[in-house]
Amino acid sequence: MTSPQPAETRTQGRSTQSATLAEIARAAGVSAPTVSKVLNGRADVAPATRSRVEELLRAHGYRRRRAEATRSPLIDLVFHELESAWAMEVIRGVENVARDAGLSVVLSESAGRLTPGRSWADQVAARRPHGVVLVLSGLDESQRALLTSRSIPFVVMDPAGDPGADVPSIGATNWQGGLAATRHLIELGHRRIGAISGPSRMMCSRARVDGYRAALETAGLPVDPELITAGDFHHEAGYRQGLALLRRPDRPTAVFAGNDLQALGLYEAARELGLRIPEDLSVVGFDDLPVARWVGPPLTTVRQPLTEMAEAAARLVLDLGRADGSAAATRVELATSLVVRSSTAAPASARAETSGDG
Amino acid sequence: MTSPQPAETRTQGRSTQSATLAEIARAAGVSAPTVSKVLNGRADVAPATRSRVEELLRAHGYRRRRAEATRSPLIDLVFHELESAWAMEVIRGVENVARDAGLSVVLSESAGRLTPGRSWADQVAARRPHGVVLVLSGLDESQRALLTSRSIPFVVMDPAGDPGADVPSIGATNWQGGLAATRHLIELGHRRIGAISGPSRMMCSRARVDGYRAALETAGLPVDPELITAGDFHHEAGYRQGLALLRRPDRPTAVFAGNDLQALGLYEAARELGLRIPEDLSVVGFDDLPVARWVGPPLTTVRQPLTEMAEAAARLVLDLGRADGSAAATRVELATSLVVRSSTAAPASARAETSGDG
Repeated sequence: MTSPQPAETRTQGRSTQSATLAEIARAAGVSAPTVSKVLNGRADVAPATRSRVEELLRAHGYRRRRAEATRSPLIDLVFHELESAWAMEVIRGVENVARDAGLSVVLSESAGRLTPGRSWADQVAARRPHGVVLVLSGLDESQRALLTSRSIPFVVMDPAGDPGADVPSIGATNWQGGLAATRHLIELGHRRIGAISGPSRMMCSRARVDGYRAALETAGLPVDPELITAGDFHHEAGYRQGLALLRRPDRPTAVFAGNDLQALGLYEAARELGLRIPEDLSVVGFDDLPVARWVGPPLTTVRQPLTEMAEAAARLVLDLGRADGSAAATRVELATSLVVRSSTAAPASARAETSGDG
Repeated sequence: MTSPQPAETRTQGRSTQSATLAEIARAAGVSAPTVSKVLNGRADVAPATRSRVEELLRAHGYRRRRAEATRSPLIDLVFHELESAWAMEVIRGVENVARDAGLSVVLSESAGRLTPGRSWADQVAARRPHGVVLVLSGLDESQRALLTSRSIPFVVMDPAGDPGADVPSIGATNWQGGLAATRHLIELGHRRIGAISGPSRMMCSRARVDGYRAALETAGLPVDPELITAGDFHHEAGYRQGLALLRRPDRPTAVFAGNDLQALGLYEAARELGLRIPEDLSVVGFDDLPVARWVGPPLTTVRQPLTEMAEAAARLVLDLGRADGSAAATRVELATSLVVRSSTAAPASARAETSGDG
């Protein structure tokens, strides 16, 4: 399946790469084949030798030339957690690009930790994929060094934190989406608008809430910190924070729910309190999962092109591999767009005024 | 990552395996290394040679001994299509077992065709996973022969068709689930109960509808073929077939929707026609996806333990690998269970009678 790699001349190497494999071996006091074994993630190397070699690879900024690296026809796709309902949209995007390129997708999960475990990096080094797409999941310094020394390119999709200026990443215009969602509610006549955020450590979550604030401020409306509650992007948080917001004596007439799952939790809270959507409460989500069209009433939401983002991330990582790591670092944000369905309407007060005027 | 394989003695081999690799090579008029290349899915073998060798491997029932096979720390997971919302539950189950075993999951899609393409089988042979889990996706004769000759075990989860008596498979008690769903509706007092099936080529779909029929018949109720409509397990089919059923002058008072996605489509059809759930229409789904709890009203459905089924399939395929293919063929069905929520109630006529009596 793998096409033969062209032999590359030394002059194409990065000027910073001074050490050869033989030099690393000499410095570590081991044979060149032992360094090769470490690079290939083989298990038959003593742990002490292994860490000495890794340390030297890193210190010398060693970078395997492509001619040395025989790649497997694989792309690695790593999720922060597979719980999220939108993981399916992302998998489909990476799968589309992989299939066209004759590659298969290896799926793993960093299981709630924001950086995948060390053994994961070793496994990746051993299987030598064409590249790694990380979803809402960062890499620590040593993991990055490990992938870089093996010339395995990586791209972060929708970074949870600041991925670093030199890490290629694909995101969406989250701030713009929060702005559009909230402006839509303001234009309908809402003045008390709540928000349920995602986890504050995720930049995408912060950006959405900042867009919400900007919409209120530019409309000359006060930002009430009590109406901004902290969720975690899951259904349950939408339900709990929704109950808290809707039980307030001065409850908001509209809520920007942070994402679609939280919006569905908010639906449940409203049902429990006997509030009708959109008559008594307007709701806007974020993501536009398939389910947003199917719930009753169909959910007004901010569409995030998840499948296209995943396709872009997979294509970028393959490009980086072909460009022998010399491609410029890239940060791409795909546009979000407001999709108006039936969960938003003018607030009761505005409707009463309108009918009073008419 | 792979632990060294014990060298096996000839006496452990299957009595049917007479041909060695050298004999296959002689019969094909090629060298033993060429046969090895074919077994390893290498691309550098002429197509004509390759098919001649494959033909001989198959004719001789050649089966690679495990000592010859160096496995990669991978499990292959193949979906019929990744569109289905329940794919996530299955991925999670296989991922759980793989992680515990120190393996990674390779995901692929047979893209709507019920048997994965030939090139997929070659890729699998080349990457030598510990095993293959196929979801709603069968293998044709030559693909089975290819995996068997490489000693790569496979298990079919929730088979779409008849997987063959000697193919290990994991399913759920679909018939029992259809029976329980329909009995629940009958016990509530419904007499005209519709059904929306999945694709008729899928055995799980047929079994559910047969369970529905059995419930009606054992309750002494007529089975009206006009109330059984053909869907495809997607939302859109639930909506269209739902509209057709609900627009009938003698519309059913309850519908067994075949799966959860079709139930959500049916919800939409009911909303469009101004019918309330459960006051005017009772609905039962199948699967118990997370969304079943979140829709309004929360959906009464038959729970299929998808994650547990996927875990069972992954464990079985690893067991088969350890047992050197000598394990008996297995068919396991995990139990389904009815989960009663708020989308089912007594029909209006029964409620009227009750209140008339009271």
